[in-house]
Amino acid sequence: MGYRPADAMAFPRFEGISTFMRLPYVQDLQGVDAAIVGIPFDTGATYRAGARFGPQAVRNGSRLLRPYNPGLKVEIFEHLSVIDYGDLPVVPGFIQESYDKIVEGLEPVHRAGVVPIGVGGDHSIVLAELRAAAAVHGPLGLAHFDSHSDTWDAYWGQRYTHGTPFLRAIEEGLLDPARSIQVGMRGSLYDAGDLQEADRLGLEMIATDELFDLGMDATAERVRRRTGDGPTFVSFDIDFVDPSFAPGTGTPEIAGPSTREVIRLLRGLRGVNAVALDVVEVLPAYDVAEITAMTAANVIFEFLSLLALRRAG
Amino acid sequence: MGYRPADAMAFPRFEGISTFMRLPYVQDLQGVDAAIVGIPFDTGATYRAGARFGPQAVRNGSRLLRPYNPGLKVEIFEHLSVIDYGDLPVVPGFIQESYDKIVEGLEPVHRAGVVPIGVGGDHSIVLAELRAAAAVHGPLGLAHFDSHSDTWDAYWGQRYTHGTPFLRAIEEGLLDPARSIQVGMRGSLYDAGDLQEADRLGLEMIATDELFDLGMDATAERVRRRTGDGPTFVSFDIDFVDPSFAPGTGTPEIAGPSTREVIRLLRGLRGVNAVALDVVEVLPAYDVAEITAMTAANVIFEFLSLLALRRAG
Amino acid sequence: MGYRPADAMAFPRFEGISTFMRLPYVQDLQGVDAAIVGIPFDTGATYRAGARFGPQAVRNGSRLLRPYNPGLKVEIFEHLSVIDYGDLPVVPGFIQESYDKIVEGLEPVHRAGVVPIGVGGDHSIVLAELRAAAAVHGPLGLAHFDSHSDTWDAYWGQRYTHGTPFLRAIEEGLLDPARSIQVGMRGSLYDAGDLQEADRLGLEMIATDELFDLGMDATAERVRRRTGDGPTFVSFDIDFVDPSFAPGTGTPEIAGPSTREVIRLLRGLRGVNAVALDVVEVLPAYDVAEITAMTAANVIFEFLSLLALRRAG
Amino acid sequence: MGYRPADAMAFPRFEGISTFMRLPYVQDLQGVDAAIVGIPFDTGATYRAGARFGPQAVRNGSRLLRPYNPGLKVEIFEHLSVIDYGDLPVVPGFIQESYDKIVEGLEPVHRAGVVPIGVGGDHSIVLAELRAAAAVHGPLGLAHFDSHSDTWDAYWGQRYTHGTPFLRAIEEGLLDPARSIQVGMRGSLYDAGDLQEADRLGLEMIATDELFDLGMDATAERVRRRTGDGPTFVSFDIDFVDPSFAPGTGTPEIAGPSTREVIRLLRGLRGVNAVALDVVEVLPAYDVAEITAMTAANVIFEFLSLLALRRAG
Amino acid sequence: MGYRPADAMAFPRFEGISTFMRLPYVQDLQGVDAAIVGIPFDTGATYRAGARFGPQAVRNGSRLLRPYNPGLKVEIFEHLSVIDYGDLPVVPGFIQESYDKIVEGLEPVHRAGVVPIGVGGDHSIVLAELRAAAAVHGPLGLAHFDSHSDTWDAYWGQRYTHGTPFLRAIEEGLLDPARSIQVGMRGSLYDAGDLQEADRLGLEMIATDELFDLGMDATAERVRRRTGDGPTFVSFDIDFVDPSFAPGTGTPEIAGPSTREVIRLLRGLRGVNAVALDVVEVLPAYDVAEITAMTAANVIFEFLSLLALRRAG
Amino acid sequence: MGYRPADAMAFPRFEGISTFMRLPYVQDLQGVDAAIVGIPFDTGATYRAGARFGPQAVRNGSRLLRPYNPGLKVEIFEHLSVIDYGDLPVVPGFIQESYDKIVEGLEPVHRAGVVPIGVGGDHSIVLAELRAAAAVHGPLGLAHFDSHSDTWDAYWGQRYTHGTPFLRAIEEGLLDPARSIQVGMRGSLYDAGDLQEADRLGLEMIATDELFDLGMDATAERVRRRTGDGPTFVSFDIDFVDPSFAPGTGTPEIAGPSTREVIRLLRGLRGVNAVALDVVEVLPAYDVAEITAMTAANVIFEFLSLLALRRAG
Repeated sequence: MGYRPADAMAFPRFEGISTFMRLPYVQDLQGVDAAIVGIPFDTGATYRAGARFGPQAVRNGSRLLRPYNPGLKVEIFEHLSVIDYGDLPVVPGFIQESYDKIVEGLEPVHRAGVVPIGVGGDHSIVLAELRAAAAVHGPLGLAHFDSHSDTWDAYWGQRYTHGTPFLRAIEEGLLDPARSIQVGMRGSLYDAGDLQEADRLGLEMIATDELFDLGMDATAERVRRRTGDGPTFVSFDIDFVDPSFAPGTGTPEIAGPSTREVIRLLRGLRGVNAVALDVVEVLPAYDVAEITAMTAANVIFEFLSLLALRRAG
Repeated sequence: MGYRPADAMAFPRFEGISTFMRLPYVQDLQGVDAAIVGIPFDTGATYRAGARFGPQAVRNGSRLLRPYNPGLKVEIFEHLSVIDYGDLPVVPGFIQESYDKIVEGLEPVHRAGVVPIGVGGDHSIVLAELRAAAAVHGPLGLAHFDSHSDTWDAYWGQRYTHGTPFLRAIEEGLLDPARSIQVGMRGSLYDAGDLQEADRLGLEMIATDELFDLGMDATAERVRRRTGDGPTFVSFDIDFVDPSFAPGTGTPEIAGPSTREVIRLLRGLRGVNAVALDVVEVLPAYDVAEITAMTAANVIFEFLSLLALRRAG
Repeated sequence: MGYRPADAMAFPRFEGISTFMRLPYVQDLQGVDAAIVGIPFDTGATYRAGARFGPQAVRNGSRLLRPYNPGLKVEIFEHLSVIDYGDLPVVPGFIQESYDKIVEGLEPVHRAGVVPIGVGGDHSIVLAELRAAAAVHGPLGLAHFDSHSDTWDAYWGQRYTHGTPFLRAIEEGLLDPARSIQVGMRGSLYDAGDLQEADRLGLEMIATDELFDLGMDATAERVRRRTGDGPTFVSFDIDFVDPSFAPGTGTPEIAGPSTREVIRLLRGLRGVNAVALDVVEVLPAYDVAEITAMTAANVIFEFLSLLALRRAG
Repeated sequence: MGYRPADAMAFPRFEGISTFMRLPYVQDLQGVDAAIVGIPFDTGATYRAGARFGPQAVRNGSRLLRPYNPGLKVEIFEHLSVIDYGDLPVVPGFIQESYDKIVEGLEPVHRAGVVPIGVGGDHSIVLAELRAAAAVHGPLGLAHFDSHSDTWDAYWGQRYTHGTPFLRAIEEGLLDPARSIQVGMRGSLYDAGDLQEADRLGLEMIATDELFDLGMDATAERVRRRTGDGPTFVSFDIDFVDPSFAPGTGTPEIAGPSTREVIRLLRGLRGVNAVALDVVEVLPAYDVAEITAMTAANVIFEFLSLLALRRAG
Repeated sequence: MGYRPADAMAFPRFEGISTFMRLPYVQDLQGVDAAIVGIPFDTGATYRAGARFGPQAVRNGSRLLRPYNPGLKVEIFEHLSVIDYGDLPVVPGFIQESYDKIVEGLEPVHRAGVVPIGVGGDHSIVLAELRAAAAVHGPLGLAHFDSHSDTWDAYWGQRYTHGTPFLRAIEEGLLDPARSIQVGMRGSLYDAGDLQEADRLGLEMIATDELFDLGMDATAERVRRRTGDGPTFVSFDIDFVDPSFAPGTGTPEIAGPSTREVIRLLRGLRGVNAVALDVVEVLPAYDVAEITAMTAANVIFEFLSLLALRRAG
Repeated sequence: MGYRPADAMAFPRFEGISTFMRLPYVQDLQGVDAAIVGIPFDTGATYRAGARFGPQAVRNGSRLLRPYNPGLKVEIFEHLSVIDYGDLPVVPGFIQESYDKIVEGLEPVHRAGVVPIGVGGDHSIVLAELRAAAAVHGPLGLAHFDSHSDTWDAYWGQRYTHGTPFLRAIEEGLLDPARSIQVGMRGSLYDAGDLQEADRLGLEMIATDELFDLGMDATAERVRRRTGDGPTFVSFDIDFVDPSFAPGTGTPEIAGPSTREVIRLLRGLRGVNAVALDVVEVLPAYDVAEITAMTAANVIFEFLSLLALRRAG
């Protein structure tokens, strides 16, 4: 049998070292299907900094999770052996050095056949995550949930920030735009051209207005169709969720989906061939009663459920 | 004329000793229809503790309430004489001793023909509340709003916690399962069997997914039909509400109903023969700008309105 | 070219003196179309005080706003020259003296043909804002978004508070009731008569229950129809929004609209002939992660977008 | 026997309606020696508002107090019958009307031979408190602990604010300057003349620098000597305490005394003939873990101890 | 070489699973000198609950600690092999069952010759800690730092709470009163007799007033002299520290020592033969910017330094 | 006459655009003696990030300051013309680019004969500040107040962080070690060698223990003697202050000086020839009731007073 969480009936849920869902903290990838991997890098942030404390917060916020997902009708750990792999070393203040370390840390995970679930950190980390995944799996499809497209070319003349990773990833050939889709963009923009960027890059985009018009199920269907059967990266920026449900983030945009809508959307992703996933931009210094951390933990819980279902066949 | 709140036009609402809605603090049950009864016991909590400060918080959070309910078109105090009865003495750390004191405190209230509205405290108190109510009214119907079913058998080998009271109540014959219904269960579970527990016990359950499918009005209709005309206990765990609207609670589950939905649901309970009600699991140490306390206070306000309407005939 | 915000690509958004959207702080009205005007007066508050820090909070919370509104498809500053005019001097503790100063401060703005966007402060300031506007434009239509009608006659014998300004304004002939509408009233009331007050005054009222029944688009249409082509004052109390999305306010009422609904409603106001607007009742001491301030800033952003569209023709 | 607090061994301290020290809430002055009187008026505040919630906060923060003072070696309630008298009605936003109500509320207390302990509210209330006390006792000595002298003539042309009450009191003949002393002034000033104001008015002043040079015992001795045997008003602004120990206040000044120093100073006042006392400027919206409220509650506890000792002879 | 913390120069201090000082999380006692042991039990609390989250908070708050103590001139891990042993299982709500589990968990630690450093939890746990220690080492000396003596006989008729453990320990023969001392008692008391309790029990007590009169060095000398060479338990209730420095606790008492004084006092304990130590009553729900957690972590850091010095000889 | 703050008697202190002390926001250096310069760069932080919001927080926290310093007996603006110069543009995430921009921004200030008072930002900015100052004034004396020496060689192989600037500055010849002194170092260290670093570099160091032994006046005298008459940079890390008084910072160390001690120490610097000063490491996301921001604002107030006195001769 694989790795599974501590038993809440023997060991109360507030007890024990904080790992994700109180899973074993293990660095041996043998016999592992999925690994929670903290990536506490936030130098790419353009507004509020502090996502470096995101992994710690999400671990603390995951303690209430139980193993069975009634929405997807799956007991995760019957099908999946999951560990908390700890954090990758990064170099705060230095994005290139950190990218190198993240790639170096994640490639062996992919090569071991383990699905990494990254916990940010700001969204700049996704470029390194994509480099590691693409090195093993080739160009990836993308299912990207976010209130921002993160495809700007540069901020203040700098090409590597949390506002630019997906453009860089396309330039580097890490993504297959034809299998990539962005969901949830909203809020004010720099200019009208921002909206055409997805088109220009060959990405599909479902902005928030369209998301609500379509509804969660139809949107999920669009994501499944777009990403197809190929290896796919699922990237979830917590600011996709409305800030009332997830205040602890760096560049919040009001008027987004509720957690209920978000969970429904994620459950619709059943069947997506996710080879890597992440949740980014959790800033505990701005959180309230851990609701952002708990939301992020629940997103990962849905990720694990989807992986378990896929594994279950 | 009965007891009613202080006049906000004479005495600003931030003024005066904190009683619920600034009702008179009275311990004589003569001429009283309903009584707010604090039960600040939280030893039954399995995760965050601190609901012992719930009654104080709900009282503070009730100051803005005015006497007329426009949704139900009723001026509560034209029909109902209501007091703040203060808190029942409990023994923190000792659940059996506390149960005894709660029963001892509530039985005279029931015998005086007064409807107690308990303010928790964690949900373990409901077992004692049910014992007191059933001692006077016989086995009760139950309308239970909560994100958890609270029908587990034991935690860490212990049979009396806030996760077990309704199973105990059924075992003790305090509830009539055929007139009992649970609404709002959601979030991860220990295993698939948790879902069959309601069935096994003869309870009706409307989990959150079904709640949203049915809508609030149809769900209320189901509750009314189930509980029928017999004496009924209405128990409202504040974690029934989404944590964005009620962060100050002990075991929050994301993706729940909004306050708007909750109020609509409660207004649909018109006609239920409530002989006792409660609101539990308010933890002010995790609250924000009193929004949880105000939500709890508004739930009680709807309770009082329903009682007033029933009294008005 | 007119006044516009600092360039976020040259100057990161957390930088610089806090003006609204980092617009120039200017007190010369030449060449200006709209002006943000802080009115930090909160002596009219009947419950929580502290809205005097509202303008400062809304300015801080506006830093993330970019110039293009994708919902209304307009780059505000292509059509509109906007400044931050600073705060009007008020006399804390003294409402009549403050009213005089506010009127004195706003009349020149109106005479210069500039649309003032007031940032409160509690809602008592609207009486002075209306006096200044009506002095230049004559009796005004009103689009009033709020969870309270603010048409009570007096509190504790006092006729000038944040609960009475619209009744005073009608008495003073500043408003044309036939072109005035109130949207969003909810929560408990003092008595059933409160509901008839709008009728008695000749105002249209869409309380929250009706608002949800109608939907945002139809409500917006009702507001547009009611206010017609004449000069109109748009007054937005942040407590119109549900407290989960805007906890930092003085007299919150649960069960209100979400920010998504609010933004949709505001976008439907396209075409209204707004000669003055305001956002009031932001209390940062009760805010969380700036979500209330950001919501208020976004409301103003929609206001500016509407003005820009009207200017664009 | 007199009125005394609830028994903590029978009724846990977090339980029960929040009165000061859980004393009986009584409005009959018969058999009473001292009365806690809330005066939740904050319209006089020149910076942060919100002290209207001070009485509620201080009551909540007083729950941990036990009846015996080991520093002064006195069991308060063996010598003193004490009640919580509730709050006096005030008119928020209207200082003259509020002054009248406060005077009207306090005069009967004095006439009944009861020592009122006012809980503010901002410091403007002290003028009304002094009017009531002087009406019964004649001109009073003053022991005033504060980081500000509150003897400015006017703010923005207004003569009644929380910065002016002691000048007004002297002008009105309520104080005997020869028996009055101010302790603790610190922080930046408007100009050098502010320092000479006490001299000009005939008051003794011990600013913070001198306070530390003298030490607490010698300062207490100076206060005792100055106030003599005549009837004295003791007024304690919580901002006398360093903001690290009392952050929840309206106009904090850093670099003040610690609570340890404050308690020692207060204990040195043994023998002062206090006919009225107050604690003002507690703003719970800025407090942390109730430390300001608890500090205020302890100040009142020392007041009660001094009264008990004097009564004990 | 022994166990030591992660290298901050390789792995930034905000990184990695939260163990104390980022020490290895190990459950094998071989080659270990001291072990951090979380004991997250808070059912014994008489006022605020929530210390069950203390161990998690103290671990998070220990991340900034570096290995060298300049005050004591010792690099801890040159002399001491230290692990984080995780948390002992407890049974929330059930004190006897929890005591059994704590004893069962700690006895093997003592038998292995490892010094356990308990992290509470409320102070009731110390009875179980003492049982385990005395089972191996015989009756212990006690150095007890606290604002309360915790030698009451019972609360509400219950003999096992966080206010009674030291009386129980003496009754059970776990302590040698002649080698026991209590330091720091302050705040209001139930009655004058509370002060004689230490005398009656044969304990030495240095209450806060005497502590400040003596100074930290002389007090430390008194503690060293009293505890002598025999095996000693050092128990540190975080409420010994003034609440300004440690607001996150359950029953704060104002006017206590600063952290500077506390650290000086602890450094004076050099030479005490500590066979077990603990830090209790950290309640993160009431903490601010982690200052309480960091204070607790620093207390443990001083403990480790003292152990290292003793080991170094 | 020079630039001075808005008049608090005409314009309440909570009013107006947030500049430091409500000084004019001016970018013309003509007729200016000293300029507040925000430098919101925090990429150099090794633990908590977020000091980029420091300047905004310090401006907000400075509103209560009045122009006269009674401790130093000086009305600042009688002698000094002071402006708020706004923020220098930085490039978040990129330290070299930011250094260039900071130097470019500050050199003209120095060349205009204006004393810049930098408001950080993390302490890494001081290297750029020193480069600008030394370019104009030659090698500088240093008066450095901090709980850390910030003379480490590198973190994670990186030579430019907030832990290394003073070593870099010495290497670059910007400082004259013979005229440089560091005050306040405390807390745990990486190893014993950290203590010898100052010696090795030729700096004088007064660690916290010695600071308390000497007292504030003697320490100030040592600083004055060491820095002599030459041009001196005064750098104040807010973590020099105990975290109880300044919790909002990135790498707090407990057991430091109180604000009272800090202000006394600063007042002792009268006569130091400061050509540039700064206050760094204010992190508002961890602040409480603005006490950290107010402390920082008061430090700058003392700086301005010292400059005024020197100017006054």
